[in-house]
Amino acid sequence: MGPHIVKSFDDDLIAIQAKIAEMGGKAEDLLRQALEAVEKRDKALAQKVIDADKKIDALEMEIEEMATTVIALRQPMAQDLRVLISALKICSTLERIGDLAKNISKRAMMFSKAGPLTITSSIVRMGRATLAQLTEVLDAYTSRDTAKAVAVWQKDVDIDEMYNALFREVVTYMMEDSRMIGAGSQMLFIAKNLERIGDHTTHISEMIHYIVEGKPLGDDRPKGEPLGLDLE
Amino acid sequence: MGPHIVKSFDDDLIAIQAKIAEMGGKAEDLLRQALEAVEKRDKALAQKVIDADKKIDALEMEIEEMATTVIALRQPMAQDLRVLISALKICSTLERIGDLAKNISKRAMMFSKAGPLTITSSIVRMGRATLAQLTEVLDAYTSRDTAKAVAVWQKDVDIDEMYNALFREVVTYMMEDSRMIGAGSQMLFIAKNLERIGDHTTHISEMIHYIVEGKPLGDDRPKGEPLGLDLE
Repeated sequence: MGPHIVKSFDDDLIAIQAKIAEMGGKAEDLLRQALEAVEKRDKALAQKVIDADKKIDALEMEIEEMATTVIALRQPMAQDLRVLISALKICSTLERIGDLAKNISKRAMMFSKAGPLTITSSIVRMGRATLAQLTEVLDAYTSRDTAKAVAVWQKDVDIDEMYNALFREVVTYMMEDSRMIGAGSQMLFIAKNLERIGDHTTHISEMIHYIVEGKPLGDDRPKGEPLGLDLE
Repeated sequence: MGPHIVKSFDDDLIAIQAKIAEMGGKAEDLLRQALEAVEKRDKALAQKVIDADKKIDALEMEIEEMATTVIALRQPMAQDLRVLISALKICSTLERIGDLAKNISKRAMMFSKAGPLTITSSIVRMGRATLAQLTEVLDAYTSRDTAKAVAVWQKDVDIDEMYNALFREVVTYMMEDSRMIGAGSQMLFIAKNLERIGDHTTHISEMIHYIVEGKPLGDDRPKGEPLGLDLE
Protein backbone atom coordinates (compact mmCIF):
# COMPACT_ATOMS: atom_id res chain seq x y z
CA MET A 1 0.00 0.00 0.00
CA GLY A 2 1.59 3.26 -1.09
CA PRO A 3 1.73 6.45 0.95
CA HIS A 4 -0.97 8.00 -1.25
CA ILE A 5 -3.54 5.37 -0.18
CA VAL A 6 -2.60 5.74 3.48
CA LYS A 7 -2.90 9.52 3.28
CA SER A 8 -6.29 9.20 1.64
CA PHE A 9 -7.63 6.86 4.33
CA ASP A 10 -6.54 9.34 6.99
CA ASP A 11 -8.31 12.04 5.01
CA ASP A 12 -11.48 9.95 5.08
CA LEU A 13 -11.31 9.59 8.85
CA ILE A 14 -10.58 13.30 9.33
CA ALA A 15 -13.49 14.24 7.05
CA ILE A 16 -15.91 12.01 8.97
CA GLN A 17 -14.81 13.40 12.32
CA ALA A 18 -15.14 16.95 10.98
CA LYS A 19 -18.72 16.14 9.87
CA ILE A 20 -19.51 14.82 13.35
CA ALA A 21 -18.14 18.06 14.82
CA GLU A 22 -20.27 20.07 12.37
CA MET A 23 -23.37 18.03 13.25
CA GLY A 24 -22.65 18.40 16.97
CA GLY A 25 -22.36 22.18 16.55
CA LYS A 26 -25.75 22.25 14.82
CA ALA A 27 -27.32 20.17 17.61
CA GLU A 28 -25.94 22.65 20.16
CA ASP A 29 -27.38 25.57 18.15
CA LEU A 30 -30.83 23.94 18.01
CA LEU A 31 -30.89 23.28 21.73
CA ARG A 32 -29.71 26.82 22.53
CA GLN A 33 -32.38 28.34 20.27
CA ALA A 34 -35.11 26.01 21.60
CA LEU A 35 -34.34 27.18 25.14
CA GLU A 36 -34.42 30.79 24.01
CA ALA A 37 -37.81 30.16 22.35
CA VAL A 38 -39.12 28.72 25.65
CA GLU A 39 -37.69 31.59 27.69
CA LYS A 40 -38.92 34.43 25.46
CA ARG A 41 -42.11 32.70 24.21
CA ASP A 42 -40.70 33.33 20.75
CA LYS A 43 -42.79 31.47 18.16
CA ALA A 44 -40.73 32.62 15.18
CA LEU A 45 -37.56 31.26 16.74
CA ALA A 46 -39.35 28.00 17.66
CA GLN A 47 -40.38 27.65 14.00
CA LYS A 48 -36.78 28.28 12.94
CA VAL A 49 -35.61 25.34 15.10
CA ILE A 50 -38.34 23.10 13.66
CA ASP A 51 -37.23 23.92 10.11
CA ALA A 52 -33.50 23.63 10.85
CA ASP A 53 -33.82 20.08 12.21
CA LYS A 54 -33.93 18.86 8.58
CA LYS A 55 -30.29 19.88 8.14
CA ILE A 56 -29.32 17.62 11.06
CA ASP A 57 -31.21 14.70 9.48
CA ALA A 58 -29.37 15.31 6.20
CA LEU A 59 -26.00 15.35 8.01
CA GLU A 60 -26.83 12.03 9.67
CA MET A 61 -27.44 10.39 6.30
CA GLU A 62 -24.27 11.92 4.90
CA ILE A 63 -22.14 10.60 7.78
CA GLU A 64 -23.76 7.16 7.59
CA GLU A 65 -22.95 6.98 3.91
CA MET A 66 -19.36 8.18 4.39
CA ALA A 67 -18.66 5.76 7.26
CA THR A 68 -20.28 2.80 5.52
CA THR A 69 -18.35 3.43 2.32
CA VAL A 70 -15.03 3.70 4.15
CA ILE A 71 -15.71 0.47 6.07
CA ALA A 72 -16.61 -1.27 2.81
CA LEU A 73 -13.70 -0.03 0.68
CA ARG A 74 -10.86 -0.02 3.23
CA GLN A 75 -10.32 -2.75 5.81
CA PRO A 76 -10.06 -0.67 8.94
CA MET A 77 -8.79 -2.39 12.09
CA ALA A 78 -8.56 -1.52 15.76
CA GLN A 79 -8.95 2.17 16.57
CA ASP A 80 -9.75 3.19 12.97
CA LEU A 81 -12.65 0.74 12.90
CA ARG A 82 -13.84 1.98 16.28
CA VAL A 83 -13.82 5.59 15.00
CA LEU A 84 -16.06 4.52 12.11
CA ILE A 85 -18.43 2.37 14.18
CA SER A 86 -18.69 5.22 16.71
CA ALA A 87 -19.38 7.73 13.95
CA LEU A 88 -22.45 5.65 13.00
CA LYS A 89 -23.66 5.62 16.60
CA ILE A 90 -22.83 9.24 17.44
CA CYS A 91 -24.62 10.56 14.36
CA SER A 92 -27.79 8.67 15.43
CA THR A 93 -27.45 10.18 18.90
CA LEU A 94 -27.02 13.72 17.56
CA GLU A 95 -30.01 13.23 15.26
CA ARG A 96 -32.10 12.32 18.29
CA ILE A 97 -30.84 15.35 20.21
CA GLY A 98 -31.94 17.50 17.24
CA ASP A 99 -35.35 15.78 17.29
CA LEU A 100 -35.73 16.50 21.00
CA ALA A 101 -34.81 20.18 20.49
CA LYS A 102 -37.43 20.32 17.72
CA ASN A 103 -39.98 18.72 20.05
CA ILE A 104 -39.18 21.28 22.78
CA SER A 105 -39.79 24.04 20.22
CA LYS A 106 -43.14 22.55 19.18
CA ARG A 107 -44.23 22.41 22.80
CA ALA A 108 -42.93 25.95 23.41
CA MET A 109 -45.22 27.18 20.64
CA MET A 110 -48.22 25.73 22.45
CA PHE A 111 -47.96 27.72 25.64
CA SER A 112 -46.51 30.92 24.32
CA LYS A 113 -48.86 32.95 26.48
CA ALA A 114 -49.55 30.55 29.34
CA GLY A 115 -47.38 29.23 32.13
CA PRO A 116 -45.71 30.83 35.11
CA LEU A 117 -42.36 32.50 34.81
CA THR A 118 -40.81 30.75 37.83
CA ILE A 119 -41.22 27.33 36.19
CA THR A 120 -39.96 28.68 32.89
CA SER A 121 -36.78 29.86 34.56
CA SER A 122 -36.29 26.46 36.25
CA ILE A 123 -36.65 24.80 32.84
CA VAL A 124 -34.22 27.20 31.22
CA ARG A 125 -31.70 26.63 34.04
CA MET A 126 -31.95 22.85 33.57
CA GLY A 127 -31.65 23.36 29.80
CA ARG A 128 -28.47 25.45 30.15
CA ALA A 129 -26.91 22.74 32.33
CA THR A 130 -27.82 20.14 29.67
CA LEU A 131 -26.37 22.30 26.91
CA ALA A 132 -23.13 22.78 28.89
CA GLN A 133 -22.80 18.97 29.16
CA LEU A 134 -23.31 18.60 25.40
CA THR A 135 -20.67 21.25 24.67
CA GLU A 136 -18.22 19.51 27.02
CA VAL A 137 -18.72 16.09 25.44
CA LEU A 138 -18.28 17.45 21.91
CA ASP A 139 -15.02 19.08 23.02
CA ALA A 140 -13.97 15.75 24.53
CA TYR A 141 -14.77 14.01 21.21
CA THR A 142 -12.64 16.43 19.19
CA SER A 143 -9.70 16.18 21.60
CA ARG A 144 -10.21 12.44 22.34
CA ASP A 145 -10.14 13.38 26.01
CA THR A 146 -11.41 10.33 27.93
CA ALA A 147 -11.10 11.99 31.34
CA LYS A 148 -13.33 14.85 30.20
CA ALA A 149 -15.80 12.38 28.64
CA VAL A 150 -16.00 10.40 31.88
CA ALA A 151 -16.53 13.62 33.87
CA VAL A 152 -19.56 14.46 31.67
CA TRP A 153 -20.87 10.91 32.10
CA GLN A 154 -20.64 11.18 35.89
CA LYS A 155 -22.18 14.65 36.06
CA ASP A 156 -25.40 13.54 34.33
CA VAL A 157 -26.78 12.66 37.76
CA ASP A 158 -27.09 16.43 38.39
CA ILE A 159 -29.41 16.72 35.37
CA ASP A 160 -31.49 13.82 36.70
CA GLU A 161 -31.80 15.58 40.05
CA MET A 162 -32.81 18.86 38.43
CA TYR A 163 -35.45 16.91 36.50
CA ASN A 164 -36.87 15.34 39.66
CA ALA A 165 -37.03 18.73 41.42
CA LEU A 166 -38.69 20.33 38.39
CA PHE A 167 -41.22 17.49 38.14
CA ARG A 168 -42.27 18.12 41.75
CA GLU A 169 -42.43 21.88 41.16
CA VAL A 170 -44.68 21.51 38.09
CA VAL A 171 -47.00 18.93 39.70
CA THR A 172 -47.42 21.13 42.79
CA TYR A 173 -48.23 24.03 40.54
CA MET A 174 -50.84 21.99 38.60
CA MET A 175 -52.43 20.94 41.87
CA GLU A 176 -52.77 24.55 42.94
CA ASP A 177 -54.37 25.71 39.70
CA SER A 178 -56.16 23.08 37.64
CA ARG A 179 -56.46 25.45 34.63
CA MET A 180 -52.72 25.01 34.23
CA ILE A 181 -52.76 21.21 33.93
CA GLY A 182 -52.52 21.30 30.13
CA ALA A 183 -49.61 23.76 30.05
CA GLY A 184 -48.03 22.01 33.03
CA SER A 185 -48.10 18.67 31.21
CA GLN A 186 -46.29 20.23 28.26
CA MET A 187 -43.68 21.58 30.68
CA LEU A 188 -43.22 18.13 32.19
CA PHE A 189 -42.43 16.81 28.71
CA ILE A 190 -40.00 19.64 27.97
CA ALA A 191 -38.18 18.77 31.20
CA LYS A 192 -38.24 15.08 30.25
CA ASN A 193 -36.82 15.92 26.80
CA LEU A 194 -33.93 17.74 28.48
CA GLU A 195 -33.33 14.77 30.75
CA ARG A 196 -33.17 12.53 27.67
CA ILE A 197 -30.73 14.89 25.95
CA GLY A 198 -28.58 14.45 29.06
CA ASP A 199 -28.77 10.68 28.62
CA HIS A 200 -27.83 10.89 24.95
CA THR A 201 -24.88 13.06 25.94
CA THR A 202 -23.62 10.25 28.19
CA HIS A 203 -23.84 7.86 25.21
CA ILE A 204 -21.36 10.09 23.40
CA SER A 205 -19.09 9.88 26.49
CA GLU A 206 -19.31 6.11 26.24
CA MET A 207 -18.37 6.19 22.54
CA ILE A 208 -15.30 8.36 23.25
CA HIS A 209 -14.19 5.87 25.89
CA TYR A 210 -14.75 3.02 23.42
CA ILE A 211 -12.68 4.74 20.70
CA VAL A 212 -9.73 5.49 22.97
CA GLU A 213 -9.73 2.49 25.32
CA GLY A 214 -11.26 -0.15 23.04
CA LYS A 215 -13.77 -1.29 25.62
CA PRO A 216 -17.11 -0.10 27.01
CA LEU A 217 -17.25 2.34 29.89
CA GLY A 218 -19.07 -0.02 32.25
CA ASP A 219 -22.52 0.01 33.72
CA ASP A 220 -22.11 1.80 37.03
CA ARG A 221 -22.97 5.35 36.03
CA PRO A 222 -24.47 7.29 38.94
CA LYS A 223 -28.15 7.73 38.15
CA GLY A 224 -30.80 9.94 39.72
CA GLU A 225 -33.81 7.67 38.94
CA PRO A 226 -35.49 10.39 36.90
CA LEU A 227 -39.08 9.26 37.45
CA GLY A 228 -40.39 12.31 39.25
CA LEU A 229 -42.55 11.74 42.29
CA ASP A 230 -42.85 8.57 44.29
CA LEU A 231 -46.60 8.16 44.33
CA GLU A 232 -47.44 5.19 46.48
CA MET B 1 -11.31 -18.08 -1.07
CA GLY B 2 -12.26 -21.70 -0.36
CA PRO B 3 -15.75 -22.94 0.37
CA HIS B 4 -14.83 -23.39 4.02
CA ILE B 5 -14.18 -19.67 4.49
CA VAL B 6 -17.34 -18.71 2.59
CA LYS B 7 -19.39 -21.12 4.70
CA SER B 8 -17.91 -19.67 7.83
CA PHE B 9 -18.75 -16.09 6.86
CA ASP B 10 -22.34 -17.14 6.17
CA ASP B 11 -22.36 -18.79 9.59
CA ASP B 12 -21.25 -15.51 11.15
CA LEU B 13 -24.08 -13.62 9.48
CA ILE B 14 -26.64 -16.27 10.45
CA ALA B 15 -25.42 -16.25 14.05
CA ILE B 16 -25.71 -12.45 14.26
CA GLN B 17 -29.21 -12.47 12.81
CA ALA B 18 -30.23 -15.23 15.23
CA LYS B 19 -28.95 -13.12 18.13
CA ILE B 20 -30.99 -10.16 16.88
CA ALA B 21 -34.07 -12.43 16.76
CA GLU B 22 -33.33 -13.63 20.29
CA MET B 23 -32.91 -10.07 21.53
CA GLY B 24 -36.12 -9.01 19.75
CA GLY B 25 -38.00 -11.86 21.43
CA LYS B 26 -36.74 -10.71 24.82
CA ALA B 27 -37.80 -7.11 24.10
CA GLU B 28 -41.29 -8.39 23.21
CA ASP B 29 -41.43 -10.40 26.45
CA LEU B 30 -40.44 -7.37 28.53
CA LEU B 31 -43.05 -5.16 26.91
CA ARG B 32 -45.77 -7.83 27.32
CA GLN B 33 -44.90 -8.30 30.99
CA ALA B 34 -44.67 -4.54 31.63
CA LEU B 35 -48.21 -4.13 30.26
CA GLU B 36 -49.42 -6.99 32.42
CA ALA B 37 -47.79 -5.35 35.45
CA VAL B 38 -49.65 -2.11 34.64
CA GLU B 39 -52.95 -3.91 34.08
CA LYS B 40 -52.85 -6.10 37.20
CA ARG B 41 -50.93 -3.66 39.44
CA ASP B 42 -48.46 -6.51 39.84
CA LYS B 43 -45.33 -5.23 41.61
CA ALA B 44 -43.54 -8.59 41.59
CA LEU B 45 -43.90 -8.83 37.81
CA ALA B 46 -42.78 -5.20 37.42
CA GLN B 47 -39.65 -6.03 39.43
CA LYS B 48 -39.06 -9.06 37.20
CA VAL B 49 -39.04 -6.81 34.11
CA ILE B 50 -36.64 -4.38 35.79
CA ASP B 51 -34.23 -7.24 36.57
CA ALA B 52 -34.56 -8.90 33.15
CA ASP B 53 -33.56 -5.73 31.27
CA LYS B 54 -29.92 -6.53 32.13
CA LYS B 55 -30.07 -9.57 29.81
CA ILE B 56 -31.04 -7.28 26.93
CA ASP B 57 -28.12 -4.98 27.68
CA ALA B 58 -25.76 -7.99 27.67
CA LEU B 59 -27.16 -9.16 24.30
CA GLU B 60 -26.56 -5.70 22.84
CA MET B 61 -22.89 -5.82 23.80
CA GLU B 62 -22.58 -9.36 22.45
CA ILE B 63 -24.08 -8.40 19.07
CA GLU B 64 -21.94 -5.25 18.85
CA GLU B 65 -18.83 -7.31 19.46
CA MET B 66 -19.82 -10.01 16.94
CA ALA B 67 -20.71 -7.49 14.20
CA THR B 68 -17.62 -5.36 14.78
CA THR B 69 -15.34 -8.41 14.68
CA VAL B 70 -16.90 -9.70 11.44
CA ILE B 71 -16.57 -6.27 9.80
CA ALA B 72 -12.93 -6.11 10.90
CA LEU B 73 -11.87 -9.62 9.90
CA ARG B 74 -13.85 -10.13 6.67
CA GLN B 75 -14.33 -7.44 4.07
CA PRO B 76 -18.07 -7.52 3.67
CA MET B 77 -19.57 -5.66 0.73
CA ALA B 78 -23.03 -4.67 -0.43
CA GLN B 79 -25.87 -6.50 1.33
CA ASP B 80 -23.58 -8.37 3.76
CA LEU B 81 -22.16 -5.09 4.99
CA ARG B 82 -25.65 -3.64 5.28
CA VAL B 83 -26.73 -6.62 7.40
CA LEU B 84 -23.83 -5.94 9.78
CA ILE B 85 -24.30 -2.16 9.94
CA SER B 86 -28.04 -2.73 10.54
CA ALA B 87 -27.30 -5.26 13.27
CA LEU B 88 -25.39 -2.53 15.12
CA LYS B 89 -28.30 -0.12 14.78
CA ILE B 90 -31.10 -2.62 15.48
CA CYS B 91 -29.43 -3.86 18.66
CA SER B 92 -29.25 -0.25 19.94
CA THR B 93 -32.94 0.17 19.11
CA LEU B 94 -33.93 -3.04 20.89
CA GLU B 95 -31.87 -2.04 23.90
CA ARG B 96 -33.83 1.21 24.08
CA ILE B 97 -37.15 -0.65 23.76
CA GLY B 98 -36.05 -2.79 26.71
CA ASP B 99 -35.17 0.37 28.66
CA LEU B 100 -38.59 1.84 27.95
CA ALA B 101 -40.33 -1.37 29.10
CA LYS B 102 -38.24 -1.19 32.28
CA ASN B 103 -39.25 2.44 32.75
CA ILE B 104 -42.95 1.54 32.30
CA SER B 105 -42.52 -1.12 35.01
CA LYS B 106 -40.88 1.36 37.38
CA ARG B 107 -43.77 3.76 36.90
CA ALA B 108 -46.31 0.93 37.25
CA MET B 109 -44.86 0.18 40.69
CA MET B 110 -45.56 3.74 41.77
CA PHE B 111 -49.32 3.76 41.33
CA SER B 112 -50.07 0.16 42.11
CA LYS B 113 -53.06 1.20 44.21
CA ALA B 114 -53.99 4.51 42.61
CA GLY B 115 -55.39 5.42 39.20
CA PRO B 116 -58.70 4.75 37.53
CA LEU B 117 -59.37 1.52 35.68
CA THR B 118 -60.73 3.17 32.51
CA ILE B 119 -57.43 4.92 31.85
CA THR B 120 -55.50 1.76 32.66
CA SER B 121 -57.47 -0.12 30.03
CA SER B 122 -56.81 2.62 27.44
CA ILE B 123 -53.09 2.38 28.21
CA VAL B 124 -53.11 -1.40 27.94
CA ARG B 125 -54.98 -1.21 24.62
CA MET B 126 -52.38 1.23 23.24
CA GLY B 127 -49.65 -1.04 24.62
CA ARG B 128 -51.05 -4.11 22.89
CA ALA B 129 -51.18 -2.23 19.57
CA THR B 130 -47.53 -1.20 20.09
CA LEU B 131 -46.53 -4.78 20.93
CA ALA B 132 -48.32 -6.09 17.81
CA GLN B 133 -46.29 -3.63 15.68
CA LEU B 134 -43.05 -4.82 17.30
CA THR B 135 -43.95 -8.48 16.65
CA GLU B 136 -44.76 -7.67 13.01
CA VAL B 137 -41.48 -5.84 12.40
CA LEU B 138 -39.42 -8.64 13.97
CA ASP B 139 -41.19 -11.14 11.68
CA ALA B 140 -40.42 -8.84 8.75
CA TYR B 141 -36.75 -8.77 9.81
CA THR B 142 -36.48 -12.57 9.94
CA SER B 143 -38.21 -13.02 6.57
CA ARG B 144 -36.61 -9.90 4.99
CA ASP B 145 -40.13 -8.85 4.00
CA THR B 146 -39.90 -5.20 2.92
CA ALA B 147 -43.63 -4.89 2.21
CA LYS B 148 -44.47 -5.98 5.75
CA ALA B 149 -41.80 -3.63 7.16
CA VAL B 150 -43.24 -0.69 5.22
CA ALA B 151 -46.77 -1.58 6.42
CA VAL B 152 -45.57 -1.38 10.05
CA TRP B 153 -43.87 1.93 9.30
CA GLN B 154 -47.07 3.38 7.86
CA LYS B 155 -49.29 2.07 10.65
CA ASP B 156 -47.33 3.89 13.36
CA VAL B 157 -49.62 6.88 12.81
CA ASP B 158 -52.36 4.86 14.59
CA ILE B 159 -50.17 4.64 17.69
CA ASP B 160 -49.58 8.39 17.53
CA GLU B 161 -53.34 8.96 17.39
CA MET B 162 -53.99 6.63 20.30
CA TYR B 163 -51.38 8.58 22.22
CA ASN B 164 -53.04 11.92 21.51
CA ALA B 165 -56.46 10.57 22.57
CA LEU B 166 -55.00 9.10 25.74
CA PHE B 167 -53.21 12.34 26.57
CA ARG B 168 -56.53 14.21 26.41
CA GLU B 169 -58.25 11.54 28.48
CA VAL B 170 -55.62 11.68 31.24
CA VAL B 171 -55.47 15.50 31.36
CA THR B 172 -59.29 15.72 31.57
CA TYR B 173 -59.20 13.22 34.39
CA MET B 174 -56.52 15.19 36.26
CA MET B 175 -58.59 18.36 35.89
CA GLU B 176 -61.60 16.63 37.45
CA ASP B 177 -59.68 15.29 40.45
CA SER B 178 -56.54 17.14 41.41
CA ARG B 179 -55.51 14.41 43.88
CA MET B 180 -54.79 12.28 40.81
CA ILE B 181 -52.33 14.69 39.18
CA GLY B 182 -49.31 12.75 40.41
CA ALA B 183 -50.59 9.35 39.23
CA GLY B 184 -51.93 10.97 36.05
CA SER B 185 -48.50 12.41 35.24
CA GLN B 186 -46.97 8.94 35.56
CA MET B 187 -49.65 7.63 33.19
CA LEU B 188 -48.82 10.35 30.67
CA PHE B 189 -45.21 9.16 30.70
CA ILE B 190 -46.21 5.50 30.31
CA ALA B 191 -48.24 6.49 27.25
CA LYS B 192 -45.30 8.54 25.95
CA ASN B 193 -42.97 5.55 26.45
CA LEU B 194 -45.32 3.42 24.35
CA GLU B 195 -45.39 6.08 21.64
CA ARG B 196 -41.57 6.05 21.63
CA ILE B 197 -41.51 2.25 21.37
CA GLY B 198 -43.70 2.72 18.30
CA ASP B 199 -41.13 5.13 16.86
CA HIS B 200 -38.26 2.73 17.53
CA THR B 201 -40.26 0.02 15.80
CA THR B 202 -40.38 2.17 12.65
CA HIS B 203 -36.58 2.52 12.83
CA ILE B 204 -36.36 -1.28 12.51
CA SER B 205 -38.67 -1.05 9.45
CA GLU B 206 -36.25 1.47 7.97
CA MET B 207 -33.29 -0.85 8.61
CA ILE B 208 -35.06 -3.77 6.87
CA HIS B 209 -35.68 -1.55 3.86
CA TYR B 210 -32.04 -0.48 3.87
CA ILE B 211 -30.80 -4.10 4.01
CA VAL B 212 -33.00 -5.29 1.15
CA GLU B 213 -33.11 -2.21 -1.10
CA GLY B 214 -29.77 -0.64 -0.26
CA LYS B 215 -31.23 2.81 0.32
CA PRO B 216 -33.14 4.65 3.07
CA LEU B 217 -36.92 4.46 3.26
CA GLY B 218 -37.45 8.19 2.77
CA ASP B 219 -38.74 10.87 5.04
CA ASP B 220 -42.47 10.99 4.33
CA ARG B 221 -43.77 8.67 7.01
CA PRO B 222 -47.31 9.63 8.04
CA LYS B 223 -47.05 11.12 11.52
CA GLY B 224 -49.69 11.93 14.10
CA GLU B 225 -47.85 14.85 15.78
CA PRO B 226 -47.85 13.10 19.15
CA LEU B 227 -47.76 16.21 21.30
CA GLY B 228 -51.04 15.79 23.15
CA LEU B 229 -53.20 18.86 23.56
CA ASP B 230 -52.99 22.07 21.60
CA LEU B 231 -52.85 24.56 24.42
CA GLU B 232 -52.87 28.04 22.94
